[in-house]
Amino acid sequence: MNFKVLKKSKKSRARLGIIETPHGVIHTPAFVPVGTQATVKGLTVDQLKNIGVESLLCNTYHLYLRPGDKIIKKLGGLHEFMNWDRPIWTDSGGFQVFSLGAAIEHRVGKVASIFPKIGNQKSHRPIRANEPITDHHHEKFARIMEEGVEFRSHLDGSKHLLTPEKSMAIQKNLGADIIFAFDECTSPLHDYQYTKKSLERTHRWATRCLRTFEHRTSNLERQGLFGIVQGGVFKDLRVKSAKFIGALDFDGFGIGGSLGKSKKEMYKILDWTVPLLPEEKPKHLLGIGSAEDILEAVERGIDTFDCVLPTRLGRHGSTLLTASGVALDVKSGRYAKDKKPIDKKCGCYACQNFSRAYICHLFKAQEMLGPILATIHNLHFMEKLMERIRKTI
Amino acid sequence: MNFKVLKKSKKSRARLGIIETPHGVIHTPAFVPVGTQATVKGLTVDQLKNIGVESLLCNTYHLYLRPGDKIIKKLGGLHEFMNWDRPIWTDSGGFQVFSLGAAIEHRVGKVASIFPKIGNQKSHRPIRANEPITDHHHEKFARIMEEGVEFRSHLDGSKHLLTPEKSMAIQKNLGADIIFAFDECTSPLHDYQYTKKSLERTHRWATRCLRTFEHRTSNLERQGLFGIVQGGVFKDLRVKSAKFIGALDFDGFGIGGSLGKSKKEMYKILDWTVPLLPEEKPKHLLGIGSAEDILEAVERGIDTFDCVLPTRLGRHGSTLLTASGVALDVKSGRYAKDKKPIDKKCGCYACQNFSRAYICHLFKAQEMLGPILATIHNLHFMEKLMERIRKTI
Repeated sequence: MNFKVLKKSKKSRARLGIIETPHGVIHTPAFVPVGTQATVKGLTVDQLKNIGVESLLCNTYHLYLRPGDKIIKKLGGLHEFMNWDRPIWTDSGGFQVFSLGAAIEHRVGKVASIFPKIGNQKSHRPIRANEPITDHHHEKFARIMEEGVEFRSHLDGSKHLLTPEKSMAIQKNLGADIIFAFDECTSPLHDYQYTKKSLERTHRWATRCLRTFEHRTSNLERQGLFGIVQGGVFKDLRVKSAKFIGALDFDGFGIGGSLGKSKKEMYKILDWTVPLLPEEKPKHLLGIGSAEDILEAVERGIDTFDCVLPTRLGRHGSTLLTASGVALDVKSGRYAKDKKPIDKKCGCYACQNFSRAYICHLFKAQEMLGPILATIHNLHFMEKLMERIRKTI
Repeated sequence: MNFKVLKKSKKSRARLGIIETPHGVIHTPAFVPVGTQATVKGLTVDQLKNIGVESLLCNTYHLYLRPGDKIIKKLGGLHEFMNWDRPIWTDSGGFQVFSLGAAIEHRVGKVASIFPKIGNQKSHRPIRANEPITDHHHEKFARIMEEGVEFRSHLDGSKHLLTPEKSMAIQKNLGADIIFAFDECTSPLHDYQYTKKSLERTHRWATRCLRTFEHRTSNLERQGLFGIVQGGVFKDLRVKSAKFIGALDFDGFGIGGSLGKSKKEMYKILDWTVPLLPEEKPKHLLGIGSAEDILEAVERGIDTFDCVLPTRLGRHGSTLLTASGVALDVKSGRYAKDKKPIDKKCGCYACQNFSRAYICHLFKAQEMLGPILATIHNLHFMEKLMERIRKTI
């Protein structure tokens, strides 16, 4: 993995760059769609390529449990398994620790106050958890120890221990181009003391990840490993984390964990941390994908983003229209006779070929093609947004 | 609509033909995939075209209830609504009379004994009904009168009256290239007396359809109207029906209704009826789509087929392998590590790009892409089957 900064903005920390991987390049700033279970829900890899998607992020936790990283390795790795020959990212599984543990306990997600209401979920529920949240989830699923995290599978209740070493081994088996160090993602409701204790552990885990990682890889075509900056909403902890993680021999960095209770807090966290990280290395903002946040974060020096938001919104019939967050609820009865496309200025397959009325009908009739077309539109929207951002830098 | 016989087999009644419609041609013998609600479940029109699909059949009953034929007309008709610029067929809604009425009462489908077991449905349930059958369905949903059929919507319980004239008007609004006369589809468990009474009514309905139809259309680009031969498993009734319907000014003919309790009975019904219908007009076998049946029916002079079987089997993970009916249950755990494609000789998108293991994973993880890929494979299988049949004539 290699990263080059091609151009820097004069007005902000925004920069134009290119990440080179064994499976091709990623032009940054880039949005990375999520294919949790080795598939972007409903779309073929050809449809993703037609949209212009350059890379995907898959979830280590989910693939470790099903079908299993060893099976994927046997089948030639994630790229061959899902037949995606462009770059792949995998997360560390750490976010799921948060989803199964504190997030459920605290009933919050990554940025508690800005979760859009989706379907019948309440806004303060952790919408990033991939399974519907039911009462039995409130039993704490994850136990965090120095060694790692013991958790129960959401699929069959089986017990597992995920450690930094194991996360690295799993991600090695999956074979993504860019992988993440194992971390604990704290909740916005965790206090200073807990966040500090957790941060120190995450730092020790980061060191363990690097040790395992370097030990295991030597060839030129090795995976890129990103370290993750934690520290919640506390300035001194974020600064400490950025300095510590930034000094380690990672190929890039993620800003993770609780990003506060408001967009403003999130932007502050970026202001505290990004300038302390090595400038020449790529920086990824984990789990953030609203257009507005992306614009703000790019100006603060973030190069890449991953988020389920555009695909999830699409599956629920919410189709993105403007960078300021305006969306059209195409499944609403008000569009039942509307001949216009979702967005008449949009060049995506859905907008070029189908009316709001048709897509509305598909949602009402619970036809798969509804979510598919809305997802295509939303991912195309994100690609065009990133293209525009890259042009303005 | 126009039909030309290009070549006749010397060994059987099989023939090679071409149906010309305002939206292009259909090479016969042809299999017509079903897009019940104006979409072949999970597939885009581009994917259908890549498979080589020349025409689709949509269900009048479903589209009348949702989104409504008047809305579809306002939006430019079915072709524009679903952006399918190739030929479309619509059925008459008559089959749903059967599905909502006698079929549920009798717990049988089109050919009672040959329904494959799909999912957890028992083999003698009417799998062609599009909604899961629940106990409350056993209340008879449809009341058949001389005037037409009074039924309650499976969506909201609202009461509707479908008559031959109304079926024609709805199909006119939908604007398919080939439409069907309104008929009653009797059950294999209906006795001679009921079937005879029903048949005579269906014949009167056929005359009413033609009257409305001719009255309403005059231009050259008019829809083709097919009459339907009924008569259950009773030879004299089938013969009577073929003679009566065959003598009317239809553009083609469908063989419908109960096709007996075995494949053998179905083949006999074809032997009785097809030779009595005008040779120069196309003949369609309604709702039959297993490869074996298609081969037998083509030899008996059938030109076109529609059936949900290949798409429905695909959605349930059953992927077609041979014309004799061998299928591979790709969702089965035995394929979880299988690197091979569904069928190594198959040129479809699924087989060219993905392993059984990956598709198995998608089904286990309940990902939409599983049913999508299996549907693509099955429709490709049907296209290739029909291509081979056309070559051998």
